[in-house]
Amino acid sequence: MATSGLEGLHLLTANTIEIHTDADLARKLESGRSLRVKLGIDPTASDIHLGFAVVLRKLREFQDQGHTAVLILGDFTAQVGDPSGRSATRPRLEPEAIEANAATYVEQIKQILTPERLEVRHNSEWLATMGIEDVLRLTARTTVARMLERNDFAQRYSTGSPISLMELLYPLLQGWDSVMVQADVELGGTDQLFNVLVGRQLQEQEGHEPQVVMTLPLLEGITGGDKMSKSLGNYVGITEAPPEMFGKIMRVPDDLMPQYFALTTGWPSDRVEHMIAELADGRLAPVVAKRLLARTLVDLYHGEGAGEGAEAEFDRVFKAHDAPSDVADIVIRRSDLEGGMARLLATAGLVPSNKEGRRMIEQGAVKIEGERVTDAEAAVDPTRIDGKVVQVGKRKFARLRTNERPGP
Amino acid sequence: MATSGLEGLHLLTANTIEIHTDADLARKLESGRSLRVKLGIDPTASDIHLGFAVVLRKLREFQDQGHTAVLILGDFTAQVGDPSGRSATRPRLEPEAIEANAATYVEQIKQILTPERLEVRHNSEWLATMGIEDVLRLTARTTVARMLERNDFAQRYSTGSPISLMELLYPLLQGWDSVMVQADVELGGTDQLFNVLVGRQLQEQEGHEPQVVMTLPLLEGITGGDKMSKSLGNYVGITEAPPEMFGKIMRVPDDLMPQYFALTTGWPSDRVEHMIAELADGRLAPVVAKRLLARTLVDLYHGEGAGEGAEAEFDRVFKAHDAPSDVADIVIRRSDLEGGMARLLATAGLVPSNKEGRRMIEQGAVKIEGERVTDAEAAVDPTRIDGKVVQVGKRKFARLRTNERPGP
Repeated sequence: MATSGLEGLHLLTANTIEIHTDADLARKLESGRSLRVKLGIDPTASDIHLGFAVVLRKLREFQDQGHTAVLILGDFTAQVGDPSGRSATRPRLEPEAIEANAATYVEQIKQILTPERLEVRHNSEWLATMGIEDVLRLTARTTVARMLERNDFAQRYSTGSPISLMELLYPLLQGWDSVMVQADVELGGTDQLFNVLVGRQLQEQEGHEPQVVMTLPLLEGITGGDKMSKSLGNYVGITEAPPEMFGKIMRVPDDLMPQYFALTTGWPSDRVEHMIAELADGRLAPVVAKRLLARTLVDLYHGEGAGEGAEAEFDRVFKAHDAPSDVADIVIRRSDLEGGMARLLATAGLVPSNKEGRRMIEQGAVKIEGERVTDAEAAVDPTRIDGKVVQVGKRKFARLRTNERPGP
Repeated sequence: MATSGLEGLHLLTANTIEIHTDADLARKLESGRSLRVKLGIDPTASDIHLGFAVVLRKLREFQDQGHTAVLILGDFTAQVGDPSGRSATRPRLEPEAIEANAATYVEQIKQILTPERLEVRHNSEWLATMGIEDVLRLTARTTVARMLERNDFAQRYSTGSPISLMELLYPLLQGWDSVMVQADVELGGTDQLFNVLVGRQLQEQEGHEPQVVMTLPLLEGITGGDKMSKSLGNYVGITEAPPEMFGKIMRVPDDLMPQYFALTTGWPSDRVEHMIAELADGRLAPVVAKRLLARTLVDLYHGEGAGEGAEAEFDRVFKAHDAPSDVADIVIRRSDLEGGMARLLATAGLVPSNKEGRRMIEQGAVKIEGERVTDAEAAVDPTRIDGKVVQVGKRKFARLRTNERPGP
């Protein structure tokens, strides 16, 4: 049974952008019945990424309060192609590719949704069997002007970019899903507002109680700016291996930390707010926050403790292969090479003294191109270091240059 | 077999507005094969009128040259509704009404087309069985901008008048008919140009040889201005009874005579041109031409000689019931009533003398409200004439008024 009354309202409305209408939502929650909460996803790609996980997590919150998640796999609509936010008609997907994607989606959503109050439907169930009469009846329900009001269509229309008639049918088809599953609430990213409102309209025209429309913010991709999307390559898939996931999060710009903490971690809002405040007043360095975020997300999708392992792996790999490319060059004299590695580090200013250099090497904290340096005293072969990146401890990097050109 | 070579080209292209393309038409005729000439008609009304007969007659000309008339009864598209030339979305017709109309259409076209090279098809045959996939495939073939280029849509869109999405599908559906019947040529009124071109486009996209598009002028309705149409009430149905048909033609404005002779009579063009020239230089009075036109059309649709009968009937009915409403009032004194009908006519100035009045009555040329007056001498009952129109001969009318109010 659903959490009675309005107790859950505060949690359910957190992090949302639009709710249409608040009154409808309050009334439906107050009824105490288990609501049917629809989320549609067209299996156009094989990975579910952190951006889509934002709405999946909201759906999970509804589940946790006793409501039913109705996940629509848009295997039919994926063939039509959602024009939302598109600047051009996109090629239609083949049914085989869609089916394969749908299967992996179902596997992946288990990481976020609980299977207890979950209903997974394919919209081909009711759309693929529609006859032309059904399609015409739907198309008679709306006008061209209404469709072209959409920002993306309006822009394409005014700039002469082609919009196929088929794209105009998309909102109606996915809206019909709401009628068929008798959705009480539909979730979507803000770019889905138009589509989700069509579902509400069609329900009203059918004489059903219209669904509450709830939109959530779009997570920016790991390079910032654009929303996270598979096609832009700026995404983190929720099934990506721990080191890849960790590494991708580490590339997220500092200023997106608050957004990522709020939308991806599933943390309660007071914890997120505390974190954001610490970041804002400098008590917390962005890089520290970012490592925490990365560990948190790896833990979330790969199990407690996976984050730390990923971090260690990341550090190893990162330091071996991903040394900053703008690291300072340090020119080493022949005489310094002869004094061995410890002395070389000291004269290069990477350690305060020969002794400290020896200590670091003994601890295994000195690496050249990711390979640990083991001998602190032996003379250094210039070919071994010229142009190479040396790393001392966790943070110091330098690219070594010798005046000596290696012999023939 | 079709008339070989290009012999028929001159006749077939007479009275056309657009041919797209002339070269295609010449090539197809030159091939010597029997062409499939499509004409689509949505059974949205029960009467075929003279306006639609214009294209039917052109189709007959193709038949006469050995080509096959493929008449598409748009029983399916009629349910969608052709938006051509419309300023608003029109209500959808019920299938029963459409079926009834289709049946009477088939009966009526026999008056113009020969049954020998005639193929009558219902487009529900291939449209009603379409699945959503087929519809989507069609809608992917064109763009919103392409559809809104249509004058009628563009105007409605710019003035904020609603266009349902369904209306956008209409041109594609009727265009698909051309693919299905493998039309070589399609005929239509000029208002059908856009639709007919869509058929050509779809054939090309299917890799078929595209149809020649041939448009014909729209006949103006009997009140002039608007094109003849059932919904405007300005039409002459080809099955209307002779007197109605005759009477309606007599109401056509004089300046439409050339248009009506050219488009409705089926006369050879030199005969039409001669007639138009005579009208232009005044050798022929418009009313005479109009009577000739009316007789000709009644003969055409009701058989040789029917025109003359209709004219006589028209004259009888017209003179009885259609007396000009602005006819002069003549006030009759009691003393004139007592002198009988002949004297009444003379004192009212409708005949030059009592004697002439008697002569006219004896000839049966005097009528009151269309009823022949037989007695010239008997005193006239004031209740029989008060407010009534008296007609003397063919052209004199007066409304009689008595000072005497009829007794209780």
